[in-house]
Amino acid sequence: MPETGTDDAVILERHGEIAVVRLNRPDQLNAFTNAMCYRLIDIFDETDADDEIRAVVITGTGRAFCAGADLAAGGDTFVLGDDPETGGAPADTGGQVSLRIYRSLKPVIAAINGPAAGVGVTMTLPADIRIASETAKFGFVFTRRGLVPEACSTWFLPRAVGISTAVEWAVGGKMVSAVEALERGLVRELVPADQVLDRALDIAREFVSGTSPVSVALTRQLMWRMLGASDPEVAHRAESIGIYVRGTSDDVREGVDAFLEKREPKFPNRITDGLPDLFE
Amino acid sequence: MPETGTDDAVILERHGEIAVVRLNRPDQLNAFTNAMCYRLIDIFDETDADDEIRAVVITGTGRAFCAGADLAAGGDTFVLGDDPETGGAPADTGGQVSLRIYRSLKPVIAAINGPAAGVGVTMTLPADIRIASETAKFGFVFTRRGLVPEACSTWFLPRAVGISTAVEWAVGGKMVSAVEALERGLVRELVPADQVLDRALDIAREFVSGTSPVSVALTRQLMWRMLGASDPEVAHRAESIGIYVRGTSDDVREGVDAFLEKREPKFPNRITDGLPDLFE
Amino acid sequence: MPETGTDDAVILERHGEIAVVRLNRPDQLNAFTNAMCYRLIDIFDETDADDEIRAVVITGTGRAFCAGADLAAGGDTFVLGDDPETGGAPADTGGQVSLRIYRSLKPVIAAINGPAAGVGVTMTLPADIRIASETAKFGFVFTRRGLVPEACSTWFLPRAVGISTAVEWAVGGKMVSAVEALERGLVRELVPADQVLDRALDIAREFVSGTSPVSVALTRQLMWRMLGASDPEVAHRAESIGIYVRGTSDDVREGVDAFLEKREPKFPNRITDGLPDLFE
Repeated sequence: MPETGTDDAVILERHGEIAVVRLNRPDQLNAFTNAMCYRLIDIFDETDADDEIRAVVITGTGRAFCAGADLAAGGDTFVLGDDPETGGAPADTGGQVSLRIYRSLKPVIAAINGPAAGVGVTMTLPADIRIASETAKFGFVFTRRGLVPEACSTWFLPRAVGISTAVEWAVGGKMVSAVEALERGLVRELVPADQVLDRALDIAREFVSGTSPVSVALTRQLMWRMLGASDPEVAHRAESIGIYVRGTSDDVREGVDAFLEKREPKFPNRITDGLPDLFE
Repeated sequence: MPETGTDDAVILERHGEIAVVRLNRPDQLNAFTNAMCYRLIDIFDETDADDEIRAVVITGTGRAFCAGADLAAGGDTFVLGDDPETGGAPADTGGQVSLRIYRSLKPVIAAINGPAAGVGVTMTLPADIRIASETAKFGFVFTRRGLVPEACSTWFLPRAVGISTAVEWAVGGKMVSAVEALERGLVRELVPADQVLDRALDIAREFVSGTSPVSVALTRQLMWRMLGASDPEVAHRAESIGIYVRGTSDDVREGVDAFLEKREPKFPNRITDGLPDLFE
Repeated sequence: MPETGTDDAVILERHGEIAVVRLNRPDQLNAFTNAMCYRLIDIFDETDADDEIRAVVITGTGRAFCAGADLAAGGDTFVLGDDPETGGAPADTGGQVSLRIYRSLKPVIAAINGPAAGVGVTMTLPADIRIASETAKFGFVFTRRGLVPEACSTWFLPRAVGISTAVEWAVGGKMVSAVEALERGLVRELVPADQVLDRALDIAREFVSGTSPVSVALTRQLMWRMLGASDPEVAHRAESIGIYVRGTSDDVREGVDAFLEKREPKFPNRITDGLPDLFE
C-alpha cells in the first residue's frame, strides 16, 4: 500500500483561532507512518509558534480516526533500525508524537471521528479532552500483535481511566465500544459522526474565549507536569514563581480591571514574546 | 474595601470534638487576604496541638464560601514584594495554606456553603472531603485574570477530578455548577445551604467515633504522602515502621481487646505525646 | 484457635490455563497468618514460573474472603520481633504479599466471595481487577484497632478509588457495603455469591485468549510501574526498548501475520525463555 505523499498525510487547517490537524490517509484508514510522526511534530511546532492559533483539534479524514501502525511491511513492520547515536533502541515514534502533544502550549482536543486502534488511540491520550463519534471504537491491541503498548500510553492510560481499566484494556487487547469508553472516562462525550468536528471546535472556542494565551500555556504545562510530581511542594514552588512573574504583567492588570469593570478582557501578552520558566 | 480586623477574619469555634474554622468577612464574601493566610496557618497549628479536637470543618460566614483573592488593590493586587531571603518569588499565600491543611494531623472537611472562586476553591483541595451547598459554584478563574492556578492546585486538582477535567476547568476558567462539581467528583455530596455545616459535622463525627487519634493522624499522613510516591515500596517501608511501632502500643492492645469483647474501644494514646516518624 | 496446617492454608488449583489461589481456613474465615504470607509468595513464584498458567484468580473458601489478621494471639498479635538484619521494623507481611502480587507476570483477578477486612482487603489492591459477591463487605479497620493501614494500601488505595474515598474509608474505618464498593470503583462488578469464581474465571480467560504471554507480562509490568513514574519520558524509554526488542520477535511476526490473515494467532514465545529488561 503506497504511502500518501508526506506533505498531505497530515494537514493543518485553520478555523479562525482553532487549528485543525487532520490525519489524512483515508484510503488506509489514516494508518500511522514514520512520515506522519515527523509531520505531526512539525505541525505542533507550528501551532505553538503562531499566536493567531489558540487551540488545536486533531481528527481524521474519512470514516476512521486512525487504524494504528501501517502494516504494509507485514511481519517486518516493527523491525527497527538501531538508534544511530546509542546503537540501541530508537525512540518510539508514537511516543515522540505523544510527548510533543504533552508539551503543546495550546490546548488540544481529540475529535475521534471513527475507529482508533494502536497508536491511533494511544497518541490521543495527552490531549486535554477526547470526544468521539458514536461509531468510534478503541483498540489497545498490542498484546494481540506480540508487542507492548507505546506512545507513552503506559503512563497516560492509567491516569486517564484508572489502573484497573488500563490493565484490562491493554492486557486483554479487546476492542472497546464507544459506550464503554464513555463509561470508563476515556472520552468526555459521544456525538453523531457528522458532528464530532463541530463539537470539538465549540469546546476549543470555550477554552480560549476570554482567557489569556500566556496563562493558558502556563496552566496547561503546570497541570500536566504536576500530574507526575512527587509532592505538592513541587507545585508550590512553580506556582509561586508563576504568580510572582505574572503578577506584574500587563495581562493581570487587564484581567483584574476587566473583571472589576464587568467587561471582557483583552489580554496583550503573547506567547511568542516568551514564557517564564516555572521549573527552575 | 477595608480589611476586617485580623483577629476575626477567620474564627475558630468548637463543636465538641470538632473544630469549625470559619472564613469570616461576609461583607466581602470572605475574600482572601494575607492576614487570613497567616491566621489559617495559626489555627491549624492550634487544632493539631489540641488533643480535645479530633477533626476540623472549614466553612464560610454568610452566603459565600470565599470569593477568591481580595481585589481591593485592583490591578496591583498581585504585585508582590520579593522574598526577603531569596530576592525572588515569595511563597504563594494560597500554597502556604494548602500545604498546612495537607499536613493537618486531624481530618479536614470542607463545608462549602456558597460560591468559591480562585483561592476560595483551591485551598479546599487538600481537605479530605468536600461537601457543598446546592447554591455553590466553583471558579478556577486564573486564566481569565492573566494569572496561573495556585494553592498547589496544579498538584491537587488533577488528583481530585482527573487530568482532563482539571485542564478543562483551569484552562477554560468557566464557573462550574454545583451539579457539575458533584458529577466530576470535586464534591462528595450536595445539601441545602442551611444544612451544609450540620452535615459536615456529622461526617467529621463519623471519622472520629471509635478511632484512635494517633492512628488517624498517621493514616491521614500516609495516604496523602503516598499519593505522590513513586513506588509501593515507599509505602511498604513506612507502613512496616508504623505496624512495628504501633504494634506494641497501648492503643493496639485496647483496640484488639475491645474488638474481641465487642465493645467500643477507649484509646489511651495522645497525639501530643508524640508521633512516630514513618518516613525516616 | 489452632492454625490449619501450613501446606493447605492456601491452596493452588488449576482450571485449565487459569490458576485459582484459594485462602483456605474457612473455619477461621480465612484469617491471615504469617504462614499464609509465605505460602502466597511461594504460590505466585510458582504461577510465574509455569508457562501453562496464563492468569491467576485469588478467592477464599467458605463464606468469607478473609477476615483480616488472625487475632488468636489477642492484644499481642501485632507485637513483632525485630528484623534480624536491621534490628528495626520487620517487613510487613501484608506488604510482602502485595508487592509479590504487584510483580506477578500473570494478570491477577480477585474474586471476593464474601467479607474482606484488614489485610483481607488490602492485599487485593494490586490485583488487576476485583469482583465481589453481593454479600461481600469491606473493612479498612486499622484506625479502630490502633494500627495503620498496611499491605502497601496507602499507595494502592488512593490510586484505586481516589484520595478522598481512600481517606474516608481508612481514617473512618467503617465497614463498606458491596454496593458502595461498586459505586466508588473498588470493585468492577457484583455477582451472586455462588457465581463469583465462575465470573472471575471468565474474565481471566478473556485476558489470555489470543494474547501473547510475553506481551501480557511486559504490559502488566509497564502499566503498574508507570503508575508511580514521575514523567511520561520514563514510559517513553521503557516502551521504546519494548517495541525494539519485541519488534524482531517470532511473536510479532505471528501476531501481524495472523491479523492480516484474519485468524487467531499462536504465539511461540514463552515467559520462561526470559523477558527483556525494559527498565535498564
